[in-house]
Amino acid sequence: MTFYNKLSVIMKKQTSLLCVGLDSDISKLPKVVRKNKYPQLTFNKKIIDATHDLVCAYKPNSAFYEARGEQGITELKMTCDYLRKKYPDVVIILDAKRADIGNTNKGYVAFAYDYLKVDAITLHPYLGREAVQPFLDRKEKGSIILCRTSNPGAGEFQDNLYQKVAMHVANYWNTNKNCALVVGATYPAELAIVRRIAKDMPILIPGIGAQGGDVEKTVKSGVDSHGTGAIINVARSIIFASTGADFAQKARGEAKKLRDEINHYRKI
Amino acid sequence: MTFYNKLSVIMKKQTSLLCVGLDSDISKLPKVVRKNKYPQLTFNKKIIDATHDLVCAYKPNSAFYEARGEQGITELKMTCDYLRKKYPDVVIILDAKRADIGNTNKGYVAFAYDYLKVDAITLHPYLGREAVQPFLDRKEKGSIILCRTSNPGAGEFQDNLYQKVAMHVANYWNTNKNCALVVGATYPAELAIVRRIAKDMPILIPGIGAQGGDVEKTVKSGVDSHGTGAIINVARSIIFASTGADFAQKARGEAKKLRDEINHYRKI
Repeated sequence: MTFYNKLSVIMKKQTSLLCVGLDSDISKLPKVVRKNKYPQLTFNKKIIDATHDLVCAYKPNSAFYEARGEQGITELKMTCDYLRKKYPDVVIILDAKRADIGNTNKGYVAFAYDYLKVDAITLHPYLGREAVQPFLDRKEKGSIILCRTSNPGAGEFQDNLYQKVAMHVANYWNTNKNCALVVGATYPAELAIVRRIAKDMPILIPGIGAQGGDVEKTVKSGVDSHGTGAIINVARSIIFASTGADFAQKARGEAKKLRDEINHYRKI
Repeated sequence: MTFYNKLSVIMKKQTSLLCVGLDSDISKLPKVVRKNKYPQLTFNKKIIDATHDLVCAYKPNSAFYEARGEQGITELKMTCDYLRKKYPDVVIILDAKRADIGNTNKGYVAFAYDYLKVDAITLHPYLGREAVQPFLDRKEKGSIILCRTSNPGAGEFQDNLYQKVAMHVANYWNTNKNCALVVGATYPAELAIVRRIAKDMPILIPGIGAQGGDVEKTVKSGVDSHGTGAIINVARSIIFASTGADFAQKARGEAKKLRDEINHYRKI
């Protein structure tokens, strides 16, 4: 099944545009899991088991695993394996923000799709389409290109560029119908512009929760013409809703609240 | 010692601007090392031992290690450990082309500087300075920002942007005097423009060798006002000069030829 199909099926099945970001920073994990041999995996499993019926996707961010070297990479792989086996319908997005020249990208393609076996990866646009072709060539996998990032200083180079990136990806990179864009919820006006350019291409939207993005504006600016196609990522405010032994239960509560709030604004 | 100092000392000591790219793609390694328990490490050690007196830096590209998951990450770390202990004067540049929002970059900073303990890392500029601040804050470490990449399709977004990136990095990002830029040898005219903007900031220049960049033009356009400050990276044409048992000896021959050719054009 292609990335677009898998995403569309799960969004409908779970009535959810919510993506939970598995930004499982070891220093922020609840004490109750930290002494485990595999603390990040243990934490992720409990978060996943508590929220799997409320989401369309999980998005582990590679940085929080790489920080621990080979041990973190091992737990990232174990997390992906667990997800794929136990909840095969749910989309896995590797947030790794990669991109190198073509020859080198093959290594990153192998990391994402042969080793971790995720459904999609986030990519920097800076090197152009020709460089990221090895990702685009994986027809069944999603290439999610950074367009307007959620950080306060995003405008430094993106102000005169994000619309061009959106246009190039929509009209020129997406020949295999496997591309998506990243636009931060912290920029709702830009999100609305990108949605017009992108037509029904999926948009991954971080920035709700700890980063302060507004849910109503995000949903209204971000969904496609069918009221879907926005992958709304929330990480810290869900996974670290509690640092006590009840963290998974509290995460479920936050996830449910957000899933329902998103559905409210898209009138579902 | 800071990145700038370490680079300057080793360039003078070894009379070399040559950086050897440790793009140790497992599928291209000579048969003689492939059956080893740590094939990438074994290969790298032999390349390093054969070339260490001819270079200013080594640049392992993370992609070729990540492709093998935790095993590759382990061998990347072992390679960095080996380098640091045996040849502590030589600069280690992690070519990882990272950049995420600030909170997440801390994970990548930990990977590069706490786990691998390299001297510098390559970074995408797309998210702006505010996002990469956790890298810039590591005063003794080098932040090497992509400016004009070496790939044929680099112009798609960079044509109207690379000069702006060079200006921002030179005039605004480099407050800790630890920044450098990446400019491909395949674009000598752009390299000359960036050198004028960057003044005496170091420039990492890939694209000589397999990618076809011209050595004379690269040296003449790339060095600073003291005839130094260009880190000229060559990977495949050195490390894969032979696929036989003589690979390290042949790599030394190629490295020496290039080191001398570079010195010839900078009149040393």
